[in-house]
Amino acid sequence: MGIRIGILGYGNLGRGVELAVGHCPDMELAGVFTRRDPAGVKIATAGVGVYPLDRAEAMADEIDVMILCGGSATDLPQQTPRFARLFNVVDSFDTHANIPQHFAQVDAAAKAGGKVAAISVGWDPGMFSLNRLLAQSILPQGQSYTFWGKGVSQGHSDAIRRIDGVKDARQYTIPVPQALEAVRAGSAPELTTRQKHTRECFVVAEEGADLARIEREIVAMPNYFSDYDTTVHFISQEELERDHSGIPHGGFVIHTGKTGGENNHVIEYSLKLDSNPEFTASVLVAYARAVCRMNREGQSGCKTVFDVPPAYLSPLSGEELREHLL
Amino acid sequence: MGIRIGILGYGNLGRGVELAVGHCPDMELAGVFTRRDPAGVKIATAGVGVYPLDRAEAMADEIDVMILCGGSATDLPQQTPRFARLFNVVDSFDTHANIPQHFAQVDAAAKAGGKVAAISVGWDPGMFSLNRLLAQSILPQGQSYTFWGKGVSQGHSDAIRRIDGVKDARQYTIPVPQALEAVRAGSAPELTTRQKHTRECFVVAEEGADLARIEREIVAMPNYFSDYDTTVHFISQEELERDHSGIPHGGFVIHTGKTGGENNHVIEYSLKLDSNPEFTASVLVAYARAVCRMNREGQSGCKTVFDVPPAYLSPLSGEELREHLL
Repeated sequence: MGIRIGILGYGNLGRGVELAVGHCPDMELAGVFTRRDPAGVKIATAGVGVYPLDRAEAMADEIDVMILCGGSATDLPQQTPRFARLFNVVDSFDTHANIPQHFAQVDAAAKAGGKVAAISVGWDPGMFSLNRLLAQSILPQGQSYTFWGKGVSQGHSDAIRRIDGVKDARQYTIPVPQALEAVRAGSAPELTTRQKHTRECFVVAEEGADLARIEREIVAMPNYFSDYDTTVHFISQEELERDHSGIPHGGFVIHTGKTGGENNHVIEYSLKLDSNPEFTASVLVAYARAVCRMNREGQSGCKTVFDVPPAYLSPLSGEELREHLL
Repeated sequence: MGIRIGILGYGNLGRGVELAVGHCPDMELAGVFTRRDPAGVKIATAGVGVYPLDRAEAMADEIDVMILCGGSATDLPQQTPRFARLFNVVDSFDTHANIPQHFAQVDAAAKAGGKVAAISVGWDPGMFSLNRLLAQSILPQGQSYTFWGKGVSQGHSDAIRRIDGVKDARQYTIPVPQALEAVRAGSAPELTTRQKHTRECFVVAEEGADLARIEREIVAMPNYFSDYDTTVHFISQEELERDHSGIPHGGFVIHTGKTGGENNHVIEYSLKLDSNPEFTASVLVAYARAVCRMNREGQSGCKTVFDVPPAYLSPLSGEELREHLL
C-alpha cells in the first residue's frame, strides 16, 4: 500500500516536500493544509486538495504521515504534539535548547495516539547529528567539529532587515578554510567562534540611509555578529535579486580520532546544497517512509534520527539493500 | 553490566579490536581465541586468557559478544554460523557475491540460538554502505559513486607476491583526482574502471630476476591490474620496510542528486585512515555494543549496518544523545 502524505504549512519547506514526494513512487500527496485561505494557495500537484489547517483532524483516515513544515519558534511546539495524537508525523524542529521538552511532549502525544513521530529531522539537526553520533561511537578517543556553509542564514538575514534604514539583506555563513584544514590535519585544535566561521552580508539600504551607521550596527550586533569577523557590502535591490536569490547551504562534520596511540583517522561528512529547504524536505520525506513503516509494525512514540534503523528510509527490501548497497 | 568481549582470531584485525575495546569504559576483554598454540600468542592486555578456538563454546556464559576476526575466504563462512548459535557475534564478511548466502546461514543460526549477529561490518561493507543507503534514500533522483584509496590493497599485494621472481610487494589503490572532481561537480559522469582508480606497485625482486617480465606480468594480470593504469616501481626490501610498512586506506562515497529539476546537491562521506585494520576493528566494537543491547532487549537473528538503530552504537543514553549530539 502506498504512503499517503499530508503537508502542513506550504512555504519553502512545504513546497520542497511536494517536490520530494513526486520523486517517490511509493508515495502520494493526499492533501496540503494551510493557515491561509486555501483559495489563495496554488500547489504544483494536480488533483490534490488544499484545506484549512483545522480540517486536518477530520482527515486522519486519509493520511499516513503528516509532514509538519512550520517554524520552530511558534508553529512546531504547538503543532507537533497536537497532530502526533492523530497522525504519524515528521518535523524539523531545530531550537536546540528546547529539544528535550519538545521530545517529551511529542512522545506523550504519539504514545497516546498509537502513532510514530520523528522530530528534529533534516540535515542539522539530522544528517549532521547522525554523523556526529556514528563518528564518536567508532572513535571515542577523538574530537568532532561541525562547520556550516557556505550558505544563507535566514535568521541572520532577518536580523539585518530589522535594522533601521535596511530595505533587504542576505547573510552568508562561511567556514574559515584554515580552520577546516587544521581540523583535517588531525591536530584537534581548540577553535573560537571567530576562528571557525566568517559572516558576509549583502545589504540593500533605503535611500539616504546612513550606511556607516548600518554597518556599525550589524558588526556590533550581539549573538548574531559581534563574535565573528563580518563583512558588509551595500548593493542595489536588483543586484540582490540577481545574485543572491538562491537559498544554498551546506557544511562539514569532521571527526578526527586515534587508535593504537599513534594512528590518526579522519571521518568527514559534507553537504553542498543548492537549496536548503528542498534538501531538508527530501530528508523529511525519507523519514516519513520510516515512521509509516515503524507504525505499521506496531511501534509508537517519538523518535529522532538516532532511533531509526537506516533500512526503513529506503523503498528497497532488505534483500535488495544487501545485494545492491552493502 | 559491562559488555564482555571475546576476540576470535588474533591477527591485525584482532589486535585492533583489543585496542578499541581498551577505549570503551563499558567493555572488557574476556578472552582471545586462536587456532595457533595459545602458548605462542602474546596479547597486549594483562590478565586476559588466550585459549584454543575449540574452547570457545565452553565459555559461552563468560562472553557477551564474540568478535570474529578471521578472513572472508574460508574462516567466516564456517565460523560465523557456528558461533552465532552460542554468542552474539560481529564479523566483517566482505565477499560481496556471497553475502545473501552468508546472511541466510547466520540468520538461521542466530535465531536458533536466540542471539544477534551483525555481519559485513566495517567501512566497506559498513560505513560506506550506510552512506550509500542514506544518500540514495534522501535523493532518489541521483547517482552514487564509491572511490577507494589512497590505500593498500592486501589482495593485490598478495597477487604480485605470487609472481615468479617477486620477493615482496605493496600495492596502492588511488582514486583519479579528475574523476573525483567530475563527480563532485554534479555532472553524473559515466566512469570506466580505468577512469576511477590507478594502481601503484612497489616491488622487491629476487636477485637476478627479469624485472621487465615481472612488470609485464603485473600490468597484464586479469581482474587485478589489466583494467587499470598501473605503475610499477622496483625498490629494495629496506625501502619497502621503511616507506611502505603502514596499512593506510580510505575513500569516498559521493552522491549527487537533484531536486526541483535544477537544484544540485552533493553529499560526500570520506575516510582517511592511517590503519585500515584498526579502524575496521573500531567499527566492529561499536557494533558489538549494538548487538549486545539488541539481544538484551530480546531480539535475535542476523543484522547488517542497515538494520541497527544508530543510538545502539553509542554508550550514551537517549537523553544524552539528544542533548549533546542532536
